[in-house]
Amino acid sequence: MSFNIVGVGPGDPELLTIKAVRLIKESDVIITPVKKEGVTDSTALSIASTYIEDKNRVVYMYFPMDKGFLTDKSVHDLYKEHAETINTMLEKNLNIVCLTLGDPSIYSTFSYLAPYINSIGFVPGITSFLHGAALAKLPLCIGEESLCIVNMTDSEDDIREIFRLHQNIVVMKVCANQALLKELLIKHNKSVNLMSNIGLEKESFTTDIDVLDRKLPYFTIGIIK
Amino acid sequence: MSFNIVGVGPGDPELLTIKAVRLIKESDVIITPVKKEGVTDSTALSIASTYIEDKNRVVYMYFPMDKGFLTDKSVHDLYKEHAETINTMLEKNLNIVCLTLGDPSIYSTFSYLAPYINSIGFVPGITSFLHGAALAKLPLCIGEESLCIVNMTDSEDDIREIFRLHQNIVVMKVCANQALLKELLIKHNKSVNLMSNIGLEKESFTTDIDVLDRKLPYFTIGIIK
Repeated sequence: MSFNIVGVGPGDPELLTIKAVRLIKESDVIITPVKKEGVTDSTALSIASTYIEDKNRVVYMYFPMDKGFLTDKSVHDLYKEHAETINTMLEKNLNIVCLTLGDPSIYSTFSYLAPYINSIGFVPGITSFLHGAALAKLPLCIGEESLCIVNMTDSEDDIREIFRLHQNIVVMKVCANQALLKELLIKHNKSVNLMSNIGLEKESFTTDIDVLDRKLPYFTIGIIK
Repeated sequence: MSFNIVGVGPGDPELLTIKAVRLIKESDVIITPVKKEGVTDSTALSIASTYIEDKNRVVYMYFPMDKGFLTDKSVHDLYKEHAETINTMLEKNLNIVCLTLGDPSIYSTFSYLAPYINSIGFVPGITSFLHGAALAKLPLCIGEESLCIVNMTDSEDDIREIFRLHQNIVVMKVCANQALLKELLIKHNKSVNLMSNIGLEKESFTTDIDVLDRKLPYFTIGIIK
């Protein structure tokens, strides 16, 4: 029996690793996150679906994605409930995989479950920013350079400091504070590659910062060189 | 004909993507980097070797790895020479892959070739820090947090600023300035997971910062939470 949190990459089913595909195929149960209770619409599952023959093995698990949920006691209780479900499966000697978009160590909701689970493994995946850099044919960092990955849900002070200090910045969750991003790009005279839904349907790219004036999709990242 | 720079991941042959394996198998020529002229000892090649049946297709290309090579004119000439070799292969309608450790956008020497090549594609790979986080079962960033990837070959001032500003830091090329890393870990009261040769032979892990007093292997990274 085993429990592995498996990164399924950014969208293209060919960007799963050989190991991820093997563990998915060998698993008895495939857990996939959903944003609302009761729905069966999961981006991670649709990416991995090429490798899943028997859909009866899929269990949908609700993870709230709103900002601030970390301080919400009921959300913690939900995680403990999910962990109990998984621990019970482990006691039945089942092989379980949990699918997660991108990589399990980068902004994955499953990180919150880990402390409550008796035995756990992580399988790395391609993140959206590595995929974005490949599509844009841009190195994220070379030579002596550093790279900062910043979430636009971070505090305004932190984000301002990061733009002051760093040349190479990957901006995640652009939609959380588009006005601030636009302001800082202009202030520091930086250009950006904005990429929405990369690897998914309705993929789009632009270097035009004026698109920041209208609401961009949830899965939008920016690569700043 | 095509030319793709393919990330082979950190060491485990199962951590190549499905796409990387397909392109390696479909290629006519496999270019792999070597650290000295004339040698055939390549880490990237040994990782991918499971997927290469006919070793006659392999071309060894010399890339110097010393600090400061960016300002060396003879190195630029070497890159142009390599690029010409590749452009000639493209004119012969060959499918070429260049193997690179980890991911092509993160500290890959092949980035320097890109501007001179007529047609190029990038295939993302698992970086050493994503693999390290998975092995250590550590999230690199969650919720609103940012993440900084810093190279210890960076300037001392930059590195000090990064330690002042960031909670989550991945330290690459630890061996370039071990004394400064130790000093900053103590000053900021941070703990570190030091990992050498992960995914390769002689893999080792420690949280003991005193190992920084002796010379660590070239492939050593640190994860700071």
